[in-house]
Amino acid sequence: MRPAEELRDAVEAHLRSLTFTPELGQLEDALRYSLEPGGKRIRPVLCLAVVEAAGGNVEQGLPAAAALELVHTFSLVHDDLPAMDDDAERRGRPSAHVAFGEGQALLAGDALLAEAMRLVLTYEDSGIARELVDATLGMIGGQYRDITGDDDDLAELHRLKTGRLFEASVGLGLRVARVPESDQDSWRRFGSEVGLLFQIVDDILDGDGLAGRLPSDEVRGLAEGSVKRARAHLESTGACSTNSSTRWPLEPVEG
Amino acid sequence: MRPAEELRDAVEAHLRSLTFTPELGQLEDALRYSLEPGGKRIRPVLCLAVVEAAGGNVEQGLPAAAALELVHTFSLVHDDLPAMDDDAERRGRPSAHVAFGEGQALLAGDALLAEAMRLVLTYEDSGIARELVDATLGMIGGQYRDITGDDDDLAELHRLKTGRLFEASVGLGLRVARVPESDQDSWRRFGSEVGLLFQIVDDILDGDGLAGRLPSDEVRGLAEGSVKRARAHLESTGACSTNSSTRWPLEPVEG
Repeated sequence: MRPAEELRDAVEAHLRSLTFTPELGQLEDALRYSLEPGGKRIRPVLCLAVVEAAGGNVEQGLPAAAALELVHTFSLVHDDLPAMDDDAERRGRPSAHVAFGEGQALLAGDALLAEAMRLVLTYEDSGIARELVDATLGMIGGQYRDITGDDDDLAELHRLKTGRLFEASVGLGLRVARVPESDQDSWRRFGSEVGLLFQIVDDILDGDGLAGRLPSDEVRGLAEGSVKRARAHLESTGACSTNSSTRWPLEPVEG
Repeated sequence: MRPAEELRDAVEAHLRSLTFTPELGQLEDALRYSLEPGGKRIRPVLCLAVVEAAGGNVEQGLPAAAALELVHTFSLVHDDLPAMDDDAERRGRPSAHVAFGEGQALLAGDALLAEAMRLVLTYEDSGIARELVDATLGMIGGQYRDITGDDDDLAELHRLKTGRLFEASVGLGLRVARVPESDQDSWRRFGSEVGLLFQIVDDILDGDGLAGRLPSDEVRGLAEGSVKRARAHLESTGACSTNSSTRWPLEPVEG
């Protein structure tokens, strides 16, 4: 297995090399600004790690990995808008709408989503595009629950807003590696657990969500249970042993 | 040829019958509100008319036709936002952001775009999805030029903001009807002319754009030239004669 850093470098290089639709004109600046390094690239790295672990070709996974990051970035750009979370900063820099104005940030988000679709439509298997679209719609459903606040089920909100794209990161990797559907179950369960774990760790770091509602030892217990299940699912894929000296690039506790 | 009214009724019925992603939850209300009758449905009707005229099955064209209307509606919902045109009314009713709030309107627009992609991904020919994505990106490029106003080329702005989706309406119809690429040229030129003509008529009705810059007889001359070219392209498709007693449902002068 390649170390996560190597996969992340491959993602960064691929994102930099992307050619956007020329008709977007200078709006491209807002897309590139929003995509600039700073993020952990955890979704595309997870996708590529699955491609590799499942015996596929990492290079073939790059467009799918990039599409996942574009969808994630689209959601951040729109989430940061004053109409949503009204965040003036993202990764230590002015948010897209502060740097480019609200109108351009809105359009840049739209364009990132459409460019992501363009990327996944380069595959012969249109199931890759379908899975990304479905995950995107689930994610939007989670954003909706987040802003309306009329849903007390925080777990469902996170399963949608965060989990759906993590699941798709694994799912797209499996499709790129042409893993038969009958062999995908453990992988997909692993993806769901990683999404849940990511959210718990995020809540702990931010002191909100679950971490704001439950005593810290209970939150720790949830995280440990999730790590245990994620390891078990990963073991049962048979693709790699979590006890081996080869470190799985997305060892769950690294969040 | 079925009359345009019949095709429009088929579009309305299909739009009403659409099932959206359950995970969107009550955000669906904002999608349905934005899609409610009142629009001319000119893009989906154009698409279906091309399917029929080119010898295809109109029913098979319905998902593509609906996807075109969803992309158009997504653009209207986002265009109406305060960050863009700040229009409080649309088709005589409160805009989506007035009825549902800015955050929900933003997410409803995002979801309409993603649902449109889901619709075109139901076709075996993934070229249908690719053409719609490319047209959407061109349209976003046009919206960008519209809000930044740093482009004096009004014709290019309209070719992108309005024309690209008209061209795709014809293009998707051709693909549904499986018209060989070598036979598509006249059809596609016809689509571009209809887009241009639509924009000229729209400018005349609103008294802006070209109609605000040129004397009225010049604008009339542009429209007449466009109608003439559209007829000529349509004639050369061989699919229908504009002199026949059968009225072409999208007779250009009806705009």
